[in-house]
Amino acid sequence: MVILAVHGGAGGDGPWRGMTDADPQRLNCMRLLLSDLGARLNNGELSALEAVTQAVEAMEDEALFNAGRGSVLDASGAITMDASIMRGEDQAAGAVVGVSKARHPIRIAHQLLEEGWPVMLNGEAADAYGVAKGLEAVEPEWLVTELRRAQWAKWKANKSAPGSTDEDDEAMLDHDGMGTVGAVALDRKGRLAAATSTGGMTGKPDGRIGDTPIIGAGTWADKDVAVSCTGVGEAFIRTCAARSLAAYHTSESLLESGQRVLDEVAPYGGRGGLIAVNASGEVIVPFQTMLMYRGTYVNGAIEVGIGPQTYD
Amino acid sequence: MVILAVHGGAGGDGPWRGMTDADPQRLNCMRLLLSDLGARLNNGELSALEAVTQAVEAMEDEALFNAGRGSVLDASGAITMDASIMRGEDQAAGAVVGVSKARHPIRIAHQLLEEGWPVMLNGEAADAYGVAKGLEAVEPEWLVTELRRAQWAKWKANKSAPGSTDEDDEAMLDHDGMGTVGAVALDRKGRLAAATSTGGMTGKPDGRIGDTPIIGAGTWADKDVAVSCTGVGEAFIRTCAARSLAAYHTSESLLESGQRVLDEVAPYGGRGGLIAVNASGEVIVPFQTMLMYRGTYVNGAIEVGIGPQTYD
Repeated sequence: MVILAVHGGAGGDGPWRGMTDADPQRLNCMRLLLSDLGARLNNGELSALEAVTQAVEAMEDEALFNAGRGSVLDASGAITMDASIMRGEDQAAGAVVGVSKARHPIRIAHQLLEEGWPVMLNGEAADAYGVAKGLEAVEPEWLVTELRRAQWAKWKANKSAPGSTDEDDEAMLDHDGMGTVGAVALDRKGRLAAATSTGGMTGKPDGRIGDTPIIGAGTWADKDVAVSCTGVGEAFIRTCAARSLAAYHTSESLLESGQRVLDEVAPYGGRGGLIAVNASGEVIVPFQTMLMYRGTYVNGAIEVGIGPQTYD
Repeated sequence: MVILAVHGGAGGDGPWRGMTDADPQRLNCMRLLLSDLGARLNNGELSALEAVTQAVEAMEDEALFNAGRGSVLDASGAITMDASIMRGEDQAAGAVVGVSKARHPIRIAHQLLEEGWPVMLNGEAADAYGVAKGLEAVEPEWLVTELRRAQWAKWKANKSAPGSTDEDDEAMLDHDGMGTVGAVALDRKGRLAAATSTGGMTGKPDGRIGDTPIIGAGTWADKDVAVSCTGVGEAFIRTCAARSLAAYHTSESLLESGQRVLDEVAPYGGRGGLIAVNASGEVIVPFQTMLMYRGTYVNGAIEVGIGPQTYD
């Protein structure tokens, strides 16, 4: 039993309500990476840990996802990216907060995991650590796309408009928050891993940290289950969503556990979704938003989707 | 039933092995704050949330604890402080990472909790937020004490010495890591809260984030239990220690749950301790290090201690 599941963020409420057209470029990115990495998981070439790392790297490189190149711009107009990763068998973990010069933030998190200490690195220190380890650094400008510049300009204009409210702001944030990426995997040796990466939210206040780099909130893996979450980060932190799913799964089914987590984040404004895989080879991709880009590879069978419908 | 429990960090292994003399100044700080805040919890003047905030503020002001004034110096010789706080009834939370100009980092975290969004703020943005909210800012130099300068100089000399090893480094880190502060409380209305604050570890690499500002790792509170942890932060992150305790406590006693958490962090180098209180009015202060400064107020009865022995 070999499984790789990915998500490209949940959203589609607020101003995008009713938007149900799937973007072929993002779905295609998922299909390609699931096909390649799934096959290499299946033949034993990749561990679960390496598969989720490469899956997230592929989505960091796809500029339409909100991670790596194509990340959204924060309040100051800059890109600051967060990522975390966890290996189930020994709960080794790595996380970076606010990096701005890495092509693949998840690879820096992976390197921290491999070295073991520290688990979490912040900002410029994390960028410098990546460079010191020979990981690919880029000019911050290389990460920025025209699409994100335009979204930021719209956010800025909306924010400055007379009569604009915090709710308008939140609606914009929700719209552009879509696109955090993540992956979970189960490999041939029964090992689990999870990884998550994001640029945050358009216009996020300087210094705001969401759930993506928080082990237990956005990402969790142990011997039984691996989880990656996406959505309004604050609610996922308050519910320690990913770790909570693992706790519930000791006595409930995987689907019940995932649904319970989403039910818990809802009252705190936590619209979103998650992907999870367990050691028995079950996989779930629940979400409470209109849409969630996601895909699964299960023993050679590939499915991708965005709304209720999926495509194989 | 009214309870307030505090800790002033766990340590005493490594180079301090055998040091069992209690420092009267720190014990006295705990006794005074427990007496004052305990009485005000008892007469209903303070909520659990306000009690843990003021308890941590008092310890941030005591320069011998490693939080607020008297925080240890990082690798660059600067002070960067982390704190987090959580309210049980609605799992509202606030956290700050790497602040350097606040007298009371925990009060900034508290303010974030009260405002609700974002939950977590990083570095200069967190300092600026505190200033904007009228919270007390100080010159970074005001936070530095002669003791911490001397410890840093010793760490630096040891690090540069020919033949020094990473193990020497770790031993020094362990020695000075002692002193993170935290508090948990149960108020007359049955509400729970937890708070934790730290300067980190002497010589910590720039940008290293430990478990203290991580909701679920260093701090957790829900309707059933409130937890504050102290120790080698990386292991507490990997085990999501505070949230895990709450998960275990749904089917195990509070003491069993606390012990299980410490057993889980141990293989990852996670020597430390924790304090926890539940809605039934039980309180535990387990630790696996030689020493842990801690104190409890239970319905008017005050106890403080450091080694196996306590003092009333």
